[in-house]
Amino acid sequence: MKALVLNDLHKFSLGEVEKPQIAHPGDAIIRMTLTTICGSDLHLIHGHIPSTPGYVLGHEFVGVVEAVGSDVKDFKPGDRVTGPAAPYCGQCENCQAGHVAHCTRGGILGSGIEAGDLSGTQSEYIRIPYADVNLVPIPDDLTDEQVLFVGDILSTGYTAVINAELRAGDSLVVYGAGPVGLCAVVAAKLFSPGQIILVDLDPFRLEMGRKLGATHIIRADQEDVLNVIGQLTNNKGADAAIEAVGLPSTFQQAVRCVGIGGRVSVVGIFAENVEVPFPEIFLKNLKIEMGLGDLRHMKRLIRMIETGQIDLTPLITHRMKLNDIQRGYEIFENRTEPVIKIAVTP
Amino acid sequence: MKALVLNDLHKFSLGEVEKPQIAHPGDAIIRMTLTTICGSDLHLIHGHIPSTPGYVLGHEFVGVVEAVGSDVKDFKPGDRVTGPAAPYCGQCENCQAGHVAHCTRGGILGSGIEAGDLSGTQSEYIRIPYADVNLVPIPDDLTDEQVLFVGDILSTGYTAVINAELRAGDSLVVYGAGPVGLCAVVAAKLFSPGQIILVDLDPFRLEMGRKLGATHIIRADQEDVLNVIGQLTNNKGADAAIEAVGLPSTFQQAVRCVGIGGRVSVVGIFAENVEVPFPEIFLKNLKIEMGLGDLRHMKRLIRMIETGQIDLTPLITHRMKLNDIQRGYEIFENRTEPVIKIAVTP
Amino acid sequence: MKALVLNDLHKFSLGEVEKPQIAHPGDAIIRMTLTTICGSDLHLIHGHIPSTPGYVLGHEFVGVVEAVGSDVKDFKPGDRVTGPAAPYCGQCENCQAGHVAHCTRGGILGSGIEAGDLSGTQSEYIRIPYADVNLVPIPDDLTDEQVLFVGDILSTGYTAVINAELRAGDSLVVYGAGPVGLCAVVAAKLFSPGQIILVDLDPFRLEMGRKLGATHIIRADQEDVLNVIGQLTNNKGADAAIEAVGLPSTFQQAVRCVGIGGRVSVVGIFAENVEVPFPEIFLKNLKIEMGLGDLRHMKRLIRMIETGQIDLTPLITHRMKLNDIQRGYEIFENRTEPVIKIAVTP
Amino acid sequence: MKALVLNDLHKFSLGEVEKPQIAHPGDAIIRMTLTTICGSDLHLIHGHIPSTPGYVLGHEFVGVVEAVGSDVKDFKPGDRVTGPAAPYCGQCENCQAGHVAHCTRGGILGSGIEAGDLSGTQSEYIRIPYADVNLVPIPDDLTDEQVLFVGDILSTGYTAVINAELRAGDSLVVYGAGPVGLCAVVAAKLFSPGQIILVDLDPFRLEMGRKLGATHIIRADQEDVLNVIGQLTNNKGADAAIEAVGLPSTFQQAVRCVGIGGRVSVVGIFAENVEVPFPEIFLKNLKIEMGLGDLRHMKRLIRMIETGQIDLTPLITHRMKLNDIQRGYEIFENRTEPVIKIAVTP
Repeated sequence: MKALVLNDLHKFSLGEVEKPQIAHPGDAIIRMTLTTICGSDLHLIHGHIPSTPGYVLGHEFVGVVEAVGSDVKDFKPGDRVTGPAAPYCGQCENCQAGHVAHCTRGGILGSGIEAGDLSGTQSEYIRIPYADVNLVPIPDDLTDEQVLFVGDILSTGYTAVINAELRAGDSLVVYGAGPVGLCAVVAAKLFSPGQIILVDLDPFRLEMGRKLGATHIIRADQEDVLNVIGQLTNNKGADAAIEAVGLPSTFQQAVRCVGIGGRVSVVGIFAENVEVPFPEIFLKNLKIEMGLGDLRHMKRLIRMIETGQIDLTPLITHRMKLNDIQRGYEIFENRTEPVIKIAVTP
Repeated sequence: MKALVLNDLHKFSLGEVEKPQIAHPGDAIIRMTLTTICGSDLHLIHGHIPSTPGYVLGHEFVGVVEAVGSDVKDFKPGDRVTGPAAPYCGQCENCQAGHVAHCTRGGILGSGIEAGDLSGTQSEYIRIPYADVNLVPIPDDLTDEQVLFVGDILSTGYTAVINAELRAGDSLVVYGAGPVGLCAVVAAKLFSPGQIILVDLDPFRLEMGRKLGATHIIRADQEDVLNVIGQLTNNKGADAAIEAVGLPSTFQQAVRCVGIGGRVSVVGIFAENVEVPFPEIFLKNLKIEMGLGDLRHMKRLIRMIETGQIDLTPLITHRMKLNDIQRGYEIFENRTEPVIKIAVTP
Repeated sequence: MKALVLNDLHKFSLGEVEKPQIAHPGDAIIRMTLTTICGSDLHLIHGHIPSTPGYVLGHEFVGVVEAVGSDVKDFKPGDRVTGPAAPYCGQCENCQAGHVAHCTRGGILGSGIEAGDLSGTQSEYIRIPYADVNLVPIPDDLTDEQVLFVGDILSTGYTAVINAELRAGDSLVVYGAGPVGLCAVVAAKLFSPGQIILVDLDPFRLEMGRKLGATHIIRADQEDVLNVIGQLTNNKGADAAIEAVGLPSTFQQAVRCVGIGGRVSVVGIFAENVEVPFPEIFLKNLKIEMGLGDLRHMKRLIRMIETGQIDLTPLITHRMKLNDIQRGYEIFENRTEPVIKIAVTP
Repeated sequence: MKALVLNDLHKFSLGEVEKPQIAHPGDAIIRMTLTTICGSDLHLIHGHIPSTPGYVLGHEFVGVVEAVGSDVKDFKPGDRVTGPAAPYCGQCENCQAGHVAHCTRGGILGSGIEAGDLSGTQSEYIRIPYADVNLVPIPDDLTDEQVLFVGDILSTGYTAVINAELRAGDSLVVYGAGPVGLCAVVAAKLFSPGQIILVDLDPFRLEMGRKLGATHIIRADQEDVLNVIGQLTNNKGADAAIEAVGLPSTFQQAVRCVGIGGRVSVVGIFAENVEVPFPEIFLKNLKIEMGLGDLRHMKRLIRMIETGQIDLTPLITHRMKLNDIQRGYEIFENRTEPVIKIAVTP
């Protein structure tokens, strides 16, 4: 089958690979109907998330069950499904402790790092292990595009908000209007904060954030961000901040912009160390929480897409065929034109 | 009356000052019967905690009520009491939100920064505002020394453990065997961790920690701390760490020594920025919580001293008169001899 | 001044009473501009909430500060304010533990049970103790009617939802479409449940609930309530239920209608014992939480009224003068015409 | 093989049954080395926990792995293990939500109600499904008797204490000094309450409770229980209560004995409805939590047995052979002699 393969660090190309087969009784084979290009693909390509070369890229997907192993009870060929970017077993010690992103038997699709050697979704077929745990049925009334982001960036954005312990009426600052930051804005709305202040450099993305629910947007290159936040919060500082960029400067602003008892939730992926101004922030009794998205929220999130409480389709700025995906990567990484998410059909 | 006054940054001397008077109907005047020298006094003297010169130092105390204002309902002259290092009003917005250490009407005793101009406890008398909120009665069967640390270092150590979300059977690392670190060891025992691993340079303090409940001690100058912790935790890392030093190196070790889902509780006071290794720790889904001790636990802590569940009297390595307190500071700061806490009588 | 006085159990009348005066330095005198008739007034009149006769009724209010005691720092004559139905001190042991509804120095306005002998709001003036803790300023852009319910039924409804541990996408059942149940519907929306199923007998109130955000309404006299809830939740049961009636039958339904891990939040006031079907519900791992509203949320709730996230003005079905209040009680208790809340001006 | 079979409601007998075989790739066959008679066996025999006749009784066990299915990764023949009374899959919706006691693919050993048709432990061999999830290795330095109760009554007692939200210094009342109540006493000690007040009728069991850590014992037939608790708590009521009996009278006392903000944790199995005095308890802001033990704590509990923090061997009052088990039931149910737990070897 056709697939996009990471040949080496920084290098990838479209080619032919073996179609995946049922390897364990709990496996399912999924025929892709829609996938994406994701920021994490770039992190994998450039080594910011550890990976090994030679595998198929991609980890967000919607598809149709093609075949199931003998132990799969809840799915059958023909079922429309989506699933997590990092399938997990539900049974190992980390999974039992609720840290499914650290499953010792699963792994990130397309990263080549997992025990099960899982290839990615930028292809025609994919194997999903522990299918009963990981696959989520798609209600008939929802399109592929509506649920495309549930298994990665929406789960991550929702986790970011939960880690921020957001409460109704709170003032929230979101650093980064990329796909995850925008998902955090949408997820934050579910908790009815009084303010969602979105900070980025990119006016197109900031405007998208405003459409999706940000109450205030700040262009970091044109305004004194902390000063504006101070004004918006009567100089008390925000109640919570989400760091969805992964740069020292945005993390430093995040811990500075919150007030006493502030919570800082970190979902950006960092490529470098961060100098943290402890003498300045210590007395504020901060809580900082970081880490990968919790993938156990998928069914709940799909329910909310069905009720109309969540709509992420505006994020899809580009649609293309798998044959054109390398052009997609060019647009996505270099932002040669306004882009947020690219939906890819096989 | 006699009192130790901070004349200027880094300079202090014993002298005569005005005896405090009832200034508000909620005030109480306390005659000191015991006070201490505390690490925070050094932070104030050297400006690591913001302060203004010209005030009396000291903030841990036991005493007897000398006089009360007209609004004080729960105390009368002759009552034996202790109270928090930083009296609070219970009524302002920060207090109502549970952040009593950030009370806008109270302040740290002896810091000169508070609204109410509160002088410190290294003196013969002290004024405590909002007496009904702040004073705690001392049961007859407890000595002054038994309750001496409730209002500051024990509250801080207990808060550190609560922020570490310590659970029975957990593996806990405590960085720093100073007074606060040792209080954290004692407080941690209340939560029945499986391991309390105490890290410091000072063999005397480490031995004290072992007596107070540390299951393992590590001399940081003689052992590879992270390596030893790895061995003790089957290379899973600790479940939680408490940073009670305030140095970049110990914070960096704290975030490294914990495993997936680890919690890092920071109570050390930092005088410099800290370079945090985000690329290394991000994927562990850490939670970092920092800040001042919660002073609302005093009654609870005194109950546990009364049942014998907490005994901090071994911390008192020196006893002296207020007249000799400058010699006490010399010993306490330079550790010219093994010292943990110095109890001072007027 | 004019006031409605409870003469004896079940008996009350409009008459002349003494205008309240500053009694403590922390007091404020408020000139009423708007008050209400509340279900709790009926509970007090009929003795379901313990009370003593001879006091002025009423406890929801909006007004203007007329005078303040010498210790009041945050308010001055002329300020528009509202406050809690049960002023509290913020300083006693119960307040410090977060149970401000059990303040040992405050009490319910108009109940005659409190230490401070507080008369009620169905009058021209009222004394509020601990004014700095209890009064909340009203932003200029909000009308009296917009904030009228913050200090009692909205705080109670919001507490009910918090106690129900409501999460985005959950299925919630609210028993009772009276004022508190309707406030619970409005508060629940802030948490983005997938379903808000409102149960009552009164079609007028159910329709009001639908307008305020209920996604489904059930007339308990015409439908098999548990059966309908089963259908709406795929026979899994609801995630949470709020009991805002106070009858055995509704409590029994509440514990039956939730599924595994269900939460039942009780804010109804019960006049009789309830037979609880433990053998039937035990295995569901339920959590039941009950009690008075938490009055510390007022500022947060007013912020959300200001942003438009909360609008309770549709609850006001009647407006009348204090002179006519006895007719108001007649309508409110016997529902001789469709009624939810009655706003009363002096 | 030999096994104790429930022939019909209230009737059981020792006989020969088929030795269990690997039925799924995730199964393990365990050779029993120690099992027990448990109160839940009686609940099953008498139908208080729903069951179907014709199966082998028993659900607490220690044994040695005899054989494993092809998917079992963490265990091999010869491993010493214990496991939960109710094996679960870790993968179904209830398990994913943390309600493993409601696993839709597992079930209580020996109850005959589970999907997998699991026979009980009062036999020579047993089949455990999802072995990697459920089995727990036994450290070499621990005896069978030391870990015998981990998978049922200790997990239940520990869950009871967690549900009681017990904090250091709290006052806790435990109703019932049976095996689960005594485990709750032992588990409670891990949280360092100030008081553990144990209530029962049986002086032998109360004395055992005192040895295991109860600070006060009350004979319910000789003392006015609520009055004694009032005295012990300065008439404030207890902070928390655990109901480990399952009778209306003990539940009613449990909700009465706690004070404001009290938590009542219910683990007793109820055979009848309970009349709850809502008018009396409503204003206390109670939290009531009920349900089956959380079986995910087993590894944590075994660690604490290894450190010596938990020792339940004193509970074993009788040791006998499987051949004599019917005599054991006679003693256990009718308490013809002082008995707490009976350890049974095949």
